[in-house]
Amino acid sequence: MYYAVIFTSHRQSDDGYVETSARMLDLAKQQPGFLGIESARGADNVGITVSYWSDLESIKAWKANVEHREAQARGKSEFYSRYKVRICTVVREYEFER
Amino acid sequence: MYYAVIFTSHRQSDDGYVETSARMLDLAKQQPGFLGIESARGADNVGITVSYWSDLESIKAWKANVEHREAQARGKSEFYSRYKVRICTVVREYEFER
Repeated sequence: MYYAVIFTSHRQSDDGYVETSARMLDLAKQQPGFLGIESARGADNVGITVSYWSDLESIKAWKANVEHREAQARGKSEFYSRYKVRICTVVREYEFER
Repeated sequence: MYYAVIFTSHRQSDDGYVETSARMLDLAKQQPGFLGIESARGADNVGITVSYWSDLESIKAWKANVEHREAQARGKSEFYSRYKVRICTVVREYEFER
């Protein structure tokens, strides 16, 4: 079993966003318990990022990471008009590949 | 507690895709146990759709819906080069709104 963090956001400003989100992606990949990440943002500025983790402790540690906390603060003050975070356990999965 | 279905896909063709996905959105909203849906697709054709459900039975019933099954078949034969489905329980959530 593993965990998914679904981060759904409405972006209102992209000033500095690309650099910050690229840096957070790099940083997340270095965290213990990190399994993977998927991200999409449409032309309407609605974005969904799902990161995958081996355990809840790793999710907590990532949330508390100092550089990540600074990015979260910019997220609230600049980048996003709103967002929602859902922490989930993945109970089943299947896939298709051509 | 409620459930999230994370559908991550790589679209390879959009011929008929907009109509099919709009119809599936309408149809999903009519299903018992449906709670909500969020969707984003970037310029790279990677898309993430997360639908929310009250229980696993409703997710199963939606997967087995006849019209949805036809759309799934087109998904495999036409729209997507690959996709992954993860069924999750949402264990915690929080949100920010300006």
